[in-house]
Amino acid sequence: MARSALPRPTEDELIARYFAPLAGEGGLSLRDDAALLVPSPGHDLVLTTDAVVAGVHYFPDDPASSIACKALGVNLSDLAAKGAEPRGFLLTLALCDEWDEAWLADFCTGLSEAAALASCPLLGGDTVRAAGPTLLGITALGEVPSGTMVRRGTAQAGDRILVSGSIGDAALGLRLRQKPVAPWGEALTYPVRAALVDRYLHPRARLALAPHLRAHARAAMDVSDGLVGDLAKMMRAADLSAEIEIDRIPLSEAARAALAVKPDLLDVALTGGDDYEILCTADPAAVPALRAASERAGVPLAEIGTVTEGGAPPVFRDAQGGIRHFRAGSFSHF
Amino acid sequence: MARSALPRPTEDELIARYFAPLAGEGGLSLRDDAALLVPSPGHDLVLTTDAVVAGVHYFPDDPASSIACKALGVNLSDLAAKGAEPRGFLLTLALCDEWDEAWLADFCTGLSEAAALASCPLLGGDTVRAAGPTLLGITALGEVPSGTMVRRGTAQAGDRILVSGSIGDAALGLRLRQKPVAPWGEALTYPVRAALVDRYLHPRARLALAPHLRAHARAAMDVSDGLVGDLAKMMRAADLSAEIEIDRIPLSEAARAALAVKPDLLDVALTGGDDYEILCTADPAAVPALRAASERAGVPLAEIGTVTEGGAPPVFRDAQGGIRHFRAGSFSHF
Repeated sequence: MARSALPRPTEDELIARYFAPLAGEGGLSLRDDAALLVPSPGHDLVLTTDAVVAGVHYFPDDPASSIACKALGVNLSDLAAKGAEPRGFLLTLALCDEWDEAWLADFCTGLSEAAALASCPLLGGDTVRAAGPTLLGITALGEVPSGTMVRRGTAQAGDRILVSGSIGDAALGLRLRQKPVAPWGEALTYPVRAALVDRYLHPRARLALAPHLRAHARAAMDVSDGLVGDLAKMMRAADLSAEIEIDRIPLSEAARAALAVKPDLLDVALTGGDDYEILCTADPAAVPALRAASERAGVPLAEIGTVTEGGAPPVFRDAQGGIRHFRAGSFSHF
Repeated sequence: MARSALPRPTEDELIARYFAPLAGEGGLSLRDDAALLVPSPGHDLVLTTDAVVAGVHYFPDDPASSIACKALGVNLSDLAAKGAEPRGFLLTLALCDEWDEAWLADFCTGLSEAAALASCPLLGGDTVRAAGPTLLGITALGEVPSGTMVRRGTAQAGDRILVSGSIGDAALGLRLRQKPVAPWGEALTYPVRAALVDRYLHPRARLALAPHLRAHARAAMDVSDGLVGDLAKMMRAADLSAEIEIDRIPLSEAARAALAVKPDLLDVALTGGDDYEILCTADPAAVPALRAASERAGVPLAEIGTVTEGGAPPVFRDAQGGIRHFRAGSFSHF
């Protein structure tokens, strides 16, 4: 990004030009000190905040519109996992000193599309100098009918464990974005590589599952730090354990193609993170209804194991019944 | 801050050790993906987000507890100006690579005190690597009875203009934090210098005024970027102008002592910002009730001028009736 020789717009000009068009009704055109949200009667608010930093959570040369999609998507994914419908978000935009208006325009285009897709308008924000890498902090607000937020720590022994979509694509896509590309990456076809990188760049929050999680799931969280680590976290929160059948963990065709070249990438797939899929548990009797509803919503939901008694770390079994251990328990961004 | 040679705690350990003790009921001990807030029936939510960055909005060697007070205070000030009662906040903590646990412990002590004082518990947050200077982003949530949020752009011609507390202390305090200290600073006594720096370090959000603004004010905003610039912003929002009597602008004894040494510091006082006082307008008939209520709440509220017709920039008159122009319209952090 070249630093423009033109005078920089002021914060007020930036707001008027780029952000006000994204503002929902409660954003008051971003011309007040605060935003206004009229809660739906009989609902609870669900609140989440997640930040992404250039060079830490994304590559500085990722497309600006993709960065926007990720910054909002990681927050929407938390709302989805709690069974919440989005109501709006606030944005903290801490810009590096080398930002330019073309980048910001692309960023806002991506943000606008992602927000429209999720019916989650911009309510307010703050723009500051980062004096370092760009940071995008989002606080997202959603709603659930009173008392129905799906919790992380409420699994029960005997519950079936399910996971949406496919696991590992984003972690493999991240490896393909790193330079130099590993030999296994070179061995993949372009469509396979593109599919994996797409999942890394563009998290797809599973908002379509939200009402069905409320109706049928016992516990849920989103998979952001790797299936292995996040499942362990979910079971610790309930003081329970789990048995997982590795062969039932849903993998995309693209991920399977990568594993065919280099089988030990399974570690990356299951521990790498950035999946933004839903991990949930349900009473076995509720599983058929949950799976049917998710099917109708267009989101596959695979049964991968069972919640078990005891506080030991979850056990992952291969097709032969052997126990497989994974290198990293959980990816930590910190 | 020396980099500790001990292994750094993980994000989960940080949360359990430092942040979970600050969490309100809705924070669910910070052990879920999201926080839960049960809105009060018949109320609207008021939402604001503001970030502060080391070296941009505060000095990296400011006390960590003061930085916490400022990070939360600037957000609470927005809530106060809108007439809102705080319900809670979410924190984005982007840490520089040189952070240590002693700093974080002090920060959390300050945050805990500021949050308790405002009855505004921690609801959730995110801790990330800043890969640059530390950034503290806060989203604060407040409530007002339905339809009573005090807006910025609703002043009417003929309204009286009022401002709380005293103006300019923080801007002068900031100058005293800069090295080398200017000759005017050297000429002040220690208690005067300390009083000004205290106002720079510790914004005092005027939450006690919130219900009285709802009851009696026509428009309000907080003074964060300087009285001159913020008043201009408020009048632009209503497409109106204003006449201000400079001698009526409330100055503390400490600020008066500084102006006695160097009279042209009035520019700094009125344009420097970081005041976090309330600027509001009220129907002349409502002023006595507003001032009496603010007096009872322990917050002085001074009448400094009148809203006038026309969209010209506000006019500032000195004791002789002459018009005074200020160098900077508004301080921009950006």
